Formats: sequence, C-alpha cells, structure tokens
Amino acid sequence: MGGVNRQWVLASHPKGMPDESNWRLREVPIPEPRSDEVLVRAIYLSVDPYMRARISPSKNYAKGVAVGEVMQGGGVGEVVRSRAPGFSEGDIVESMSFGWQEHAVLRHEVATKVDPSLAPIQAALGGLGMPGLTAYFALLDAARIQPGETVLISAAAGAVGQVAGQIAKMKGCRPVAVAGSEEKLAWCRTLGYDAGVNYRAAPDLMKAIREACPNGVDVFLDNTAGPIHDAAMQSLAMRARVIVCGRVALAGRFEEPDIGPRFLDRILTQRARVQGFLVFDYKDRYPEALKELAAWYRDGKLQLREDVIKGIENMPKAFLRLLTGDNFGKQLVKVMAK
Amino acid sequence: MGGVNRQWVLASHPKGMPDESNWRLREVPIPEPRSDEVLVRAIYLSVDPYMRARISPSKNYAKGVAVGEVMQGGGVGEVVRSRAPGFSEGDIVESMSFGWQEHAVLRHEVATKVDPSLAPIQAALGGLGMPGLTAYFALLDAARIQPGETVLISAAAGAVGQVAGQIAKMKGCRPVAVAGSEEKLAWCRTLGYDAGVNYRAAPDLMKAIREACPNGVDVFLDNTAGPIHDAAMQSLAMRARVIVCGRVALAGRFEEPDIGPRFLDRILTQRARVQGFLVFDYKDRYPEALKELAAWYRDGKLQLREDVIKGIENMPKAFLRLLTGDNFGKQLVKVMAK
Repeated sequence: MGGVNRQWVLASHPKGMPDESNWRLREVPIPEPRSDEVLVRAIYLSVDPYMRARISPSKNYAKGVAVGEVMQGGGVGEVVRSRAPGFSEGDIVESMSFGWQEHAVLRHEVATKVDPSLAPIQAALGGLGMPGLTAYFALLDAARIQPGETVLISAAAGAVGQVAGQIAKMKGCRPVAVAGSEEKLAWCRTLGYDAGVNYRAAPDLMKAIREACPNGVDVFLDNTAGPIHDAAMQSLAMRARVIVCGRVALAGRFEEPDIGPRFLDRILTQRARVQGFLVFDYKDRYPEALKELAAWYRDGKLQLREDVIKGIENMPKAFLRLLTGDNFGKQLVKVMAK
Repeated sequence: MGGVNRQWVLASHPKGMPDESNWRLREVPIPEPRSDEVLVRAIYLSVDPYMRARISPSKNYAKGVAVGEVMQGGGVGEVVRSRAPGFSEGDIVESMSFGWQEHAVLRHEVATKVDPSLAPIQAALGGLGMPGLTAYFALLDAARIQPGETVLISAAAGAVGQVAGQIAKMKGCRPVAVAGSEEKLAWCRTLGYDAGVNYRAAPDLMKAIREACPNGVDVFLDNTAGPIHDAAMQSLAMRARVIVCGRVALAGRFEEPDIGPRFLDRILTQRARVQGFLVFDYKDRYPEALKELAAWYRDGKLQLREDVIKGIENMPKAFLRLLTGDNFGKQLVKVMAK
C-alpha cells in the first residue's frame, strides 16, 4: 500500500532512569503482509512497566530489545490488509507484539480479534487485557484471596492496581491502596478500596501501612518493589502471601543490585510466602478470565480509567510518566483518530 | 524426693553472638510433681538453633526466655515420679518443654512417651523428633519435592539437614549438601547426597553452588540465611521453592536488621516462592510422620549421626558450637548415665 511507517527504535540502553534520548523515531516504508499475516494500523499503543526490563542489557524472563530494534509493546488497531484466514479489513485486533509503531505486520497467531461491542477497544490493553489478567490471576490464583482478608495493593490506581482493588472488593476482601496522591486515593475509594496510603506524603510509610491495615496484610500485591515493599513487609499477617508482580520503583537503578533490609525473619515467623508472578504463565486460561472481566465491565462492576496522551511522537514521554508514577490510570498513547 | 536440681537460667540477653556469660548455672531443690504432672530426670538435653531467637529480646514466633528464667529446650529422660495417668516410673519421655536442667516437672500433655525399642532414646531429640519432623514436612509438604529435582540443603550434616538429604534421595531427587568441612561433605555423600559445597573453602560460593547444581536449584532448604542464602538465590531454577527454616548464620547479629542484596528480580523472573516454615504448624500430623521416620530408621534407610557432649555444665558450650557450625551431627548433651 506504500506510505510511511513511523516507529521508535532503541537508541541506547539506559543507565539508571531512562530518558527520551534512549529511543529514536524513524520512518520506514509501510511493510506488506505475507501469507498468514495481517497489516494493522495502530489506534492505541500501550506503555507498561515491564518495558523497563526489556530495555535493560541484563538477562530477564524475555528477550530484550537490542539497540536499533523496534521497541516492544502491545497495541490495538485496525486491520488494513489481511492475508491471514479469519481476519478481514476493518477488524479490530490487539497484539502484545505490536511494537512502538504506526503500522505492524503481525502473524495471525500473535493477533487477537477484539469485539468493539464489549468495551472501548483500548480496554484490550488495560482492564480487559494483560494488566487486567495480571490482577485477576495474581489475586485469584497466585494469592488465592479469601473473604475478610486485607489485600494491600501498590500502584493502586495503575493499570493492574485499579482492577485488583475492584476484584478484591468483589470477593469480600478489604483492599487497601498505596498510591502517590490524594486524588488517586480518592478515586480508589470510589472503586471500593477501603483505605489508602499516600506513599509520597506519609512521614513514616511503615506506620501508615500498619495503621491502614490494623490486622496486618494478608495479601500484598507488590507492583513496585522499593520503599513500599520494605514498609509493607513489616506488616505481614500470619500466612501472608506477597505476590511480586512488578518493580517499577527500581526503574532508576534497574541494573544495580537491590540492596536493603531483607525480611527472612518476618517470612519465617509469619510463615509468609513471597512469590514471583508472570501473567504469561496463564495463557491457557486467558479466555475464561477475559470472559469474566468483560462480564464485570458490562455489569458496571468493573470501572476502568485511562490516562491518554496523543501522538506517536510522545511514546517515550508516556513511558517515562509511568516510571515516575505521574500517570493516573492505565497509560495509553492514542496514535490516530479512528 | 529431695535433692538438688541444677539448671541453667538466662543471665542476660546477648548482644550479637552469645557467650557463656549469658547463662548462669544454679542449684534449686528438685521439685515435686502435682496432680497430672510427672517428675523426669534428664538423660539427654538438646540444643537447637531456634534457641537463639528465644534469648533475643526481639519479638518472635514464640515467647522468649526472660532474664532469670530457666533456659528453654527439649530433653529426653526417665520418669522418676508420676502423678499423671498413663505415665509410670521408669518410662522414657521426651518433651520440648524440658528446659536446660537435670530434673523437670512436666504436665502430662507436654510429655510424650518414647519407645526405647524403636531407636536410641536420644533420636527423639533428632531424626525421630523435632529436627526430623522439620526435614520431613519442609520437603514433603511445604516444598513438595518431585523426583528429579535438585534439592539444595544448607547445614546439610546438621540435625535437620542429615534427615532432609536422605528423604530427598529416597524420593528420587538430587540432594546437594552445603556444609563447613570436607569431612562433613564426605559423610553427606554416604547418606545419599549427590554433590556438596564446602562453604568455608569455596573461593566463590555462588559459582560453587552453580557448578554443583548445573540445572539450577529447584528446592532450597535454607537452614542458615546469610551468605549461603545469598549465593543460593542466584541459582534458582524456574518455579523454585525456597523454604526458610532457620537463620543460624545470623546468630551473631540477630537483633540487627539483615541488610544485603534482595532477590525480587530472581523471584519474579523465576516465578520462585520463598516461604517461611515452622514445624509446630504440623503438630496434628506428627504421628504419621514419626511412624514413617521410625520405619525408615528400622529398615536402615535413615541414618542418624549425633555429636554428644557430656555434662550439664557444658550446655552453653554445646549451644555455641551449634551457632558456629562446629558440631558434626545432631548436637546433644548427655546429662547422666542411664
């Protein structure tokens, strides 16, 4: 079809906190799909904390982005040309393999059709997508939350946290939010969070968490690591489960060893469990979870808040907002008018 | 019955590594049992790493020993007077509530009869007692070891480790020992350990563990915390389980925060689980486990090695040997000839 495809490539691996100079926007020809592929035009692109690990030269659970390669990321868009069975022009599809670019050629197995009648299509990148699935499986499978339990959630207004708080409440738990502003905490309360801690304002974070969780923390959905982790680990209830989901607070020192207090004494005396979590382990069960999340959304039980920036030229900016916690809701970039 | 009872009381809480001055040997009259109580004369007394926590003024899972109180500990001995139904003079009993003393008056519910035909009576303080039960439930319940898995065990020649290695081998795993001398490692190999690491001699402990566990560590029975923990955490296999059983390597800085590298990155990327373990949580299942342990012992599948010091005057010395890893096998004190 010709035309220009703008895409962000990694210019350099960051040292500490990334900045915009770590990426470069380039123009290439829009590619042609081959057999079993579709060409998709982006409508929304996603930025997510896991991308900090992908641009690190350190080994991680997934292959990183090499310098000169298109930056990895999920997106939702419209099929503009299909050579894959089951996909037609005009279909809306979501893919974790989209990349930070206006157009992507995707093999059919990495593209998933999105039903626009279920929810705004960008929900496929948030509450009805990877972050929502993370909240769902982290709480319901990894932590196995039980009614009456106190569930502490960091980055509580973020893409994962907002869904997690609502699920915890629906399941009869007492969700407690940790977030970076009073405005975010106020919104969290409208979602069903029973209490909140402003980690930027609390003079003593450990004490603030202890006061917000007077019976201790039964489940801690740890989306940040860092100081919030350190404070929360001192309020674990007996048989607490700590689900290690993300480490966004370490974005500025990702390649350095994380030195600080260890909590083997608490883990031992509380018979607690600290457990790593990756949503991709649950791929086989995505359909059941998405069905339930979509039903909750339809029934008004699941609210989703987005923080949308316009223009592909703002991808690095949007990502950096996320790393510093300046976003309020699921951070998205709207790439073109639909 | 009159006579003198020698007993060790706590003289002071230690600061850092305890020394003998933290206890005081005193003489009191041998007490008389009341209704539902038995008077027991010690034959073997036990020293165990958990006692380091009991003499700390810090909060822990169990009530600590106050200055002036008899030091807590398990013992096995002979009933010399019974006012409790089911107990007769001459019965051998074991109790976790014995204390560091020659004679103890015990309520019947904290005394357990020992069958001297099963094994030497002191096994009730080791492989057929609390340490054996710890190994049993830590591996079979908390870690759920599976055939073919690599099971790394620290303090491998100690009271818990020696039993753990043999259970892991019986279950088709590949047990790997961490111990403090070549002599201990050689003995561990006779028990069924497939490989060993001498933590005192290895120039690079992380590398030594990695070489001994080329497919990674599936289960880590962590009896020590400290440098062995730090090295082992860097070799976790996918879905590794770390069972936090003890922290004897921190005996010299028990009251200080434990500062060092944290491993949330490894826990996340390996989807590992770090879990606190206390054997007392399994009280209801002791009988089944003891039956199986005793059968293994009878059939020659479970070997038990003891390190016996004679004389109640040596209780603190025996305990300190344990904290520095100078014992070789289950550390016991033989209090009087039987």
